[in-house]
Amino acid sequence: MVFIPSPTVERHVTEAGLKRPDLSRHLSREARARLPNPIKSIWKVAQVKPGTINMGNGDPHHTLYPISEMNFVVPSIDDADPVQAWRTGTGGQQVISSFKDEPCALSLRTAFAYGAGAGLQHVRDALADLNNRIHSPPNHSVSLSLGNADALTKCFRLLGDPGDSFLCEEFTFSAMTNAALPLGIDWVPIRMDEGGLMPADMERILSSWDEATQGKRPHVLYTIPCSQNPTGSTLSLERREQIYQIAREWDIVILEDDPYFFLQYDLDVNSATVAQHGFTRAMADALPRSFLSMDYDGRVMRLDSFSKILAPGMRLGWVTSNHFFAEKLDMLTDSSSQHPHGLGQAFVAELLGKDGWGADGFMKWVSSLCSEYERRRNLFMDVFRREVAKTGFASAEVPQSGMFVWIKINLEHHVRYRRIENSSGGPCTNTAELMDELFRKLLDCGLVMMPASTFAIADRTGRSTEGHIADRVNYFRATFVGTDETICNGLSIFGRTIEDWYCF
Amino acid sequence: MVFIPSPTVERHVTEAGLKRPDLSRHLSREARARLPNPIKSIWKVAQVKPGTINMGNGDPHHTLYPISEMNFVVPSIDDADPVQAWRTGTGGQQVISSFKDEPCALSLRTAFAYGAGAGLQHVRDALADLNNRIHSPPNHSVSLSLGNADALTKCFRLLGDPGDSFLCEEFTFSAMTNAALPLGIDWVPIRMDEGGLMPADMERILSSWDEATQGKRPHVLYTIPCSQNPTGSTLSLERREQIYQIAREWDIVILEDDPYFFLQYDLDVNSATVAQHGFTRAMADALPRSFLSMDYDGRVMRLDSFSKILAPGMRLGWVTSNHFFAEKLDMLTDSSSQHPHGLGQAFVAELLGKDGWGADGFMKWVSSLCSEYERRRNLFMDVFRREVAKTGFASAEVPQSGMFVWIKINLEHHVRYRRIENSSGGPCTNTAELMDELFRKLLDCGLVMMPASTFAIADRTGRSTEGHIADRVNYFRATFVGTDETICNGLSIFGRTIEDWYCF
Repeated sequence: MVFIPSPTVERHVTEAGLKRPDLSRHLSREARARLPNPIKSIWKVAQVKPGTINMGNGDPHHTLYPISEMNFVVPSIDDADPVQAWRTGTGGQQVISSFKDEPCALSLRTAFAYGAGAGLQHVRDALADLNNRIHSPPNHSVSLSLGNADALTKCFRLLGDPGDSFLCEEFTFSAMTNAALPLGIDWVPIRMDEGGLMPADMERILSSWDEATQGKRPHVLYTIPCSQNPTGSTLSLERREQIYQIAREWDIVILEDDPYFFLQYDLDVNSATVAQHGFTRAMADALPRSFLSMDYDGRVMRLDSFSKILAPGMRLGWVTSNHFFAEKLDMLTDSSSQHPHGLGQAFVAELLGKDGWGADGFMKWVSSLCSEYERRRNLFMDVFRREVAKTGFASAEVPQSGMFVWIKINLEHHVRYRRIENSSGGPCTNTAELMDELFRKLLDCGLVMMPASTFAIADRTGRSTEGHIADRVNYFRATFVGTDETICNGLSIFGRTIEDWYCF
Repeated sequence: MVFIPSPTVERHVTEAGLKRPDLSRHLSREARARLPNPIKSIWKVAQVKPGTINMGNGDPHHTLYPISEMNFVVPSIDDADPVQAWRTGTGGQQVISSFKDEPCALSLRTAFAYGAGAGLQHVRDALADLNNRIHSPPNHSVSLSLGNADALTKCFRLLGDPGDSFLCEEFTFSAMTNAALPLGIDWVPIRMDEGGLMPADMERILSSWDEATQGKRPHVLYTIPCSQNPTGSTLSLERREQIYQIAREWDIVILEDDPYFFLQYDLDVNSATVAQHGFTRAMADALPRSFLSMDYDGRVMRLDSFSKILAPGMRLGWVTSNHFFAEKLDMLTDSSSQHPHGLGQAFVAELLGKDGWGADGFMKWVSSLCSEYERRRNLFMDVFRREVAKTGFASAEVPQSGMFVWIKINLEHHVRYRRIENSSGGPCTNTAELMDELFRKLLDCGLVMMPASTFAIADRTGRSTEGHIADRVNYFRATFVGTDETICNGLSIFGRTIEDWYCF
C-alpha cells in the first residue's frame, strides 16, 4: 500500500498514538472460533511451487464461461459538468469494456473465477490508492464488501457477543441496529443535537457505566459521521477529535459507516489545485476529515459504498481497517457471502483504470454529483422556507452533506400538545401520538416522510436523566434527492397539510 | 407460481404427505428474534395508495446512475452444440443487452435501485418457472442467493443454535461445515459407500440418539446429492426416497446443496422430446429426481447455483423452500448482504428472456456443457485406466455427474501400511500418515490433488462402531474439468509418482 500523505491535513499524533491497543479483545466468540477454509489452506501450501498442476479444485475453465466481453455505456468524463451533461443528454458517452481473451485492466478470466473474500487484488489496490489519496490511513487494509449493510452486519458479527452493548446515535439507521438485536447486541443511545452525537454524553455513558449492574461496558461505537441517517447532521472536526479521544480512553472500536461521505455541499474545491493536481487532491483537501484519517490505533473500521455515487444495485463497497480485523473480516466473508461478484469488480477495475475514468475522473464525477445534489438541496430548502417554514409549524437545518433534511415539527404550538404526568421514566408528553397522527394525515394527503420514531433508539438501561426519547420524536426525515417535481409537489402537500392540521 | 407437473415423474404421495410439519420448531433463536426492517414496514403501509409522493427514502434517482446500457457478448444458442462452437471459436455470438431508458426484460432503473433481499420479482419468476419445469415443487418459493456458499451459511444461521448437531456426509465440503462450527453447530457424520450416504446409517444415528447424553437430536441434514463433494457420488432415486422417508420420520430439514445438478453425464435425452417440447422438458425428463421434487412436507431447502453452469464470479444462485422458511431467509438477507447485485440480476433476466437464450436455450447450453464435461470425464477415466489403474495401486468409480473423481489408494498393498493397536477409539491404521506422505510426494512432483483428510468429518460423539474415519482417508479428490493437457499431464505424474512411491 502506497502511503501518500495529504499535505494540507495536519495529523493528530500523540504519544499514546504509538501504543497500539489489544485488538483481539474486541473479537466475538464466533470470530475467535472461526477456522480458515481447509481447502484454501491446502492451496497456500501448494502454491509455493510454480508450474504445479492443479487437479484439486472444481473450478470451471474460463473457456467455458459463456461471456467473452462485457460493455457498460457510461458518461464521458470530459464534460466540464458530466452529471449535468448526462442528465440532459447533451454530453458524450464512453464505453467501459472488459474482455475474457483480450487485454484489459482486469480480465474476465479472473473476474469470473472463484476469488478471495476480500476481493481481487487489482480492485483492492485501486480502492486503497483512492483511500490513501483521501484519508492517508496508516497501516490499514482494504477489503471489498457488498455495500455497507453487508459490511456493517459483518462487523456486528465480528465484534459482538450476546449480552454486549454497543453505542450508537439516539436516532440512527434502525434497519442496521435491528439487524444486531438477534445477535444479542443491545444498543445504548448517545444524545444528539444539531451537530450530531454529543461527545460529552458518550463520555458520561462510559464513565458512569457500572459493569456490575449493566454488564460489559460498550466496546463499539456505530456512527454515521456525514449526513447522519436520519438527522442529516455532519460531525465537525472538533467533535470527531473528541470522539476519537474518548474512544481511545475507553478502548472503543469505531464503526465509521460513511455512505454519504462523497456527497458534500458548499465545498471549497480549489480550482488551482484541480488544474495542478487533479480532482482527487482538490476533493481530498475539501472533504471532511474521516475517523479513519486519525486512526493511528487501528480502532476504526471505515465503511465506504458505491451505492450513493454509482448505484445501489452495484452492491459494492469497501471496508478499511487494521490488518488484524481485516483478516478476521475476510474469513467471515469466505464463510458467508464468499466473495464479491466479478461483474461489479470488473466494472470498477475498468472504470478506475487507465481506459476508464481513472481515479481522477471518478472524483470529477463525484464532484459534479455534489453540485447536482447541492442544487437539489438548495431547491428543497427554498421551497421548504416558502411552503413550510413560513407557517411557523416546522423548521429545518440546512444539511451539509448526504440526502436528508431533518424536519422539526414545532409541536409545542399544537393545540392538542400536552404534558403527561409520568414518574416511571416513560414519556412526559403526547409527542409520539401527535406525530403518528400527522404521519397518517400526510399519508392520506399522498406524501410519505419517515417519522423519527422509526429511527429512535430507546434507552433500555434506564440511565438517561435527559428525558424519554419519545418526547423528542417530533421530526420527519425527508429526502431531497428526488426530482424537482417531487420536491415541489411534496413540500407543497406538506405545507398545506401541516397548516391544516394545526389550524383546524 | 405456475404449477406444471412433469408428466414422466411419478409423485410419491402418501397420506402423511398431507400433514405439514411444524416448521417453526426448526428456527434458530437468532431467526426467531429477527425483526422486520422498520423502514420497509413503513413502506408496506405507504404503498397501499398509488400516486403517493415518496420523500422518505434516500434512493439515488435513476437519472443519476452513470450506466445507461450494459452489454454481454455470449455464444449464439443456435449452434447444434453451442459449447463446442464457443470453445473452438467457430460459432456465432449474441449480445445480451440491458437498458436504463429503453425497453428490455428488466430495466436498469429497477436493477440498479435498492431491491428486496429475495431478489427482483422478474428474476425470481424466471427461476421459479425453470424450477417448476424441472422439479414441479408444490407450494415452494424462490429466493435469490449469492451462490450456494451464501445460501448454505444463511441456512445454518436460520436453523442452527449453539449446541445443535447437524447430520452430514462423512466426507463433505469442509469449507461449509467449518463455517457452521463458530455458530456452535456440531457435525454428525453419516457413513458413505460408492452410492453416497447410507440411509441405514442415518436411521441408526437418529434412532439410537440419546438426548440425555448427546444433546438435542439432529434436526437438519446437509447433503450434496449430485457429484457429492468430494466423493463424486450421486444418490440413487431409491436412496433419495429412503432418506426423505427417514427425514419425515424424524422431522429433519434437508439442505439439498446441488451445484452440480445440471452437470449430468450419460443422460438419455430424448431427441423426439427435444424436437417436440424443447430442451427443458427433455432435460427435466432425464435429470435425477431432486429431494425438492418429493417435498410435500416443505422440509427441503434446495440450493441451486449458476457458478458451475455460467461462472463462479456471477455469485448468483437460488434457494427454493417452503414459504415460511423463505420469508425468514429473506429477512436474514435484508439484515446482512441486503439484496443480490443488480448487474447479475439484469444479465440473468435478459439471458432467460425472450431476447436472450430463453429458458429453453439456457437448457440447451446446459445440455451442451454436459456433453463437453462428459468428454472430459471420459478422457480422464481413459487416461486414468492407462496411467494409474494399471498399476493396481489406485482405482476409481466413474462419476455420473459433476466435476470430481474420488480416487482410492489401495494402501493395503503398500509395504509400510500397518495396523496400530488402539483401544481408545482412535485410528487402527497408519492410513492418514501414509496419505500425507503421498500428498507431499505428489506436490514435490508438481501435482495437487485434494487429500480426503481435508474433507473428513470426525465422529466426535464417539458413537461409531464402524472404525475411525482416519482409517478411511485413503482417497484423493481429483477434478476432470481442467484442460485435456492438465488431465493428461496430471494423471501421468500421478501414475509415475504412485508407482515410484509403492515400489521404491
